[in-house]
Amino acid sequence: MNDDSPSTNSAGGAVAARLAMTAAYDGTAYQGWQVQPGTPTVQRAIEEAFGTLCGGTRPRIHGSGRTDTGVHARGQVFHVEPSRDYPPAKWVEALNGLLPPDIRILEARGVDPGFHARFSAEGKQYRYYIHNHPVLPPDLRLYRTHVRRPLRLEAMRRAAGRLVGTWDFTSFSAGRGGPEESAVRTLRRLELMREENGDLCLIAEADGFLYKMVRRLAGALIRAGLDELSPDDIQALLDRPERNHLAPTAPPRGLFLWRVEYPRGRGLDFRVR
Amino acid sequence: MNDDSPSTNSAGGAVAARLAMTAAYDGTAYQGWQVQPGTPTVQRAIEEAFGTLCGGTRPRIHGSGRTDTGVHARGQVFHVEPSRDYPPAKWVEALNGLLPPDIRILEARGVDPGFHARFSAEGKQYRYYIHNHPVLPPDLRLYRTHVRRPLRLEAMRRAAGRLVGTWDFTSFSAGRGGPEESAVRTLRRLELMREENGDLCLIAEADGFLYKMVRRLAGALIRAGLDELSPDDIQALLDRPERNHLAPTAPPRGLFLWRVEYPRGRGLDFRVR
Repeated sequence: MNDDSPSTNSAGGAVAARLAMTAAYDGTAYQGWQVQPGTPTVQRAIEEAFGTLCGGTRPRIHGSGRTDTGVHARGQVFHVEPSRDYPPAKWVEALNGLLPPDIRILEARGVDPGFHARFSAEGKQYRYYIHNHPVLPPDLRLYRTHVRRPLRLEAMRRAAGRLVGTWDFTSFSAGRGGPEESAVRTLRRLELMREENGDLCLIAEADGFLYKMVRRLAGALIRAGLDELSPDDIQALLDRPERNHLAPTAPPRGLFLWRVEYPRGRGLDFRVR
Repeated sequence: MNDDSPSTNSAGGAVAARLAMTAAYDGTAYQGWQVQPGTPTVQRAIEEAFGTLCGGTRPRIHGSGRTDTGVHARGQVFHVEPSRDYPPAKWVEALNGLLPPDIRILEARGVDPGFHARFSAEGKQYRYYIHNHPVLPPDLRLYRTHVRRPLRLEAMRRAAGRLVGTWDFTSFSAGRGGPEESAVRTLRRLELMREENGDLCLIAEADGFLYKMVRRLAGALIRAGLDELSPDDIQALLDRPERNHLAPTAPPRGLFLWRVEYPRGRGLDFRVR
């Protein structure tokens, strides 16, 4: 058996050394996904739960990407190689038994050793929810961005139409990456849906997102819906991708990392139980 | 001007001495609606906000009824006669500016002095939400009752059909009222809907509800959906209305007081601004 082979458990069944898991979380109480010294993060909470189940050995988990403070997830994906062999369904149950109720593991699968939650991803879908009414219902207060003044959907959709495509999205980023890093991304979909309760849901899909990109896309569309930003202003943000020429940033609480896409037939689809 | 007339403000416009307001709240942090010594309740929080706006004089507010610890509301109604004259819309804005975000005033109207939030009510609608899937999403954890095992909708709907009508609902109450109080209520509607996301929503409408009645109706239907209570068991609960023969109680977090009904042409429809 070479190093790439799966190990074998006592019952003789194949056990995936590498697992991919899907997690949902309420980001309200966390300083985002990524482990940082001395602050509660989602990654840390999950690693601690693994640590408890692995006799104190805390494995590193690798997410598909970071989410910011206060941002939520319905479908974050991470991979991990825990030091203990459990069938994937058992991991889900055991982790959920230890994690606080604002973090849930939805699914676990054995994956190819070459699968990487971040580098194997082909794209992501984010959803940004807006409650557009003078009063924000209490049970939605942590999961919706509140816009009191009426938004013009038509104007928002026209602006969204301008943004779809392959562009240098520097004006829609936080300007963190070094100058050598490309800010060109392909925004495949930017669609505004009306929910049953009247809320607006902005669906954004791309091959990848820059830091704060979804919040700046949402910020630009909200301004467009308030007639404070014209389609030409939006176009200018794309035509002049400069650090000192930025789209406005919408708040984190309306944002959900909804789904991470991986190539079919490999990665998450490999050796599924 | 006789005592029943509205007072007149400095601008000469009519001001309703009695106001009816609709409130929504997240019941998670409160020991229910009703003021109790030394505990945080929704009524107390609203009375305190009024007190601040009325120069320290805290008016008593009168709700359509109590809600229990952890129960939510989308449409609780109360009436109040504050010592200060504001137009209703101004009250909404001022109260929401002072209240914590888990309590929101949705609407205020001037009402007839004979209007009483509790005694004028003709009926109520409650909604009970169930998430029926092995894992409860974090953003729904405070607003859904979690049932892991699959529920049979057909069995729940059959049970609901038995419960609609005029019955002695003693077996669906907490058995608090004195023996002289009637436990006969007319359940006009008990309908199970499937939400867009797959959640179940039980809609219950009656001329009035006994203490814990909706939670016991929901408890009985959940048991029916798990094949642990037959339609005949349900019928027996109605036919034998006894304190020691009670339906199971479902948890509070899935429950919302959704709407209070008042006769049209009077009460809330009177002197609307």
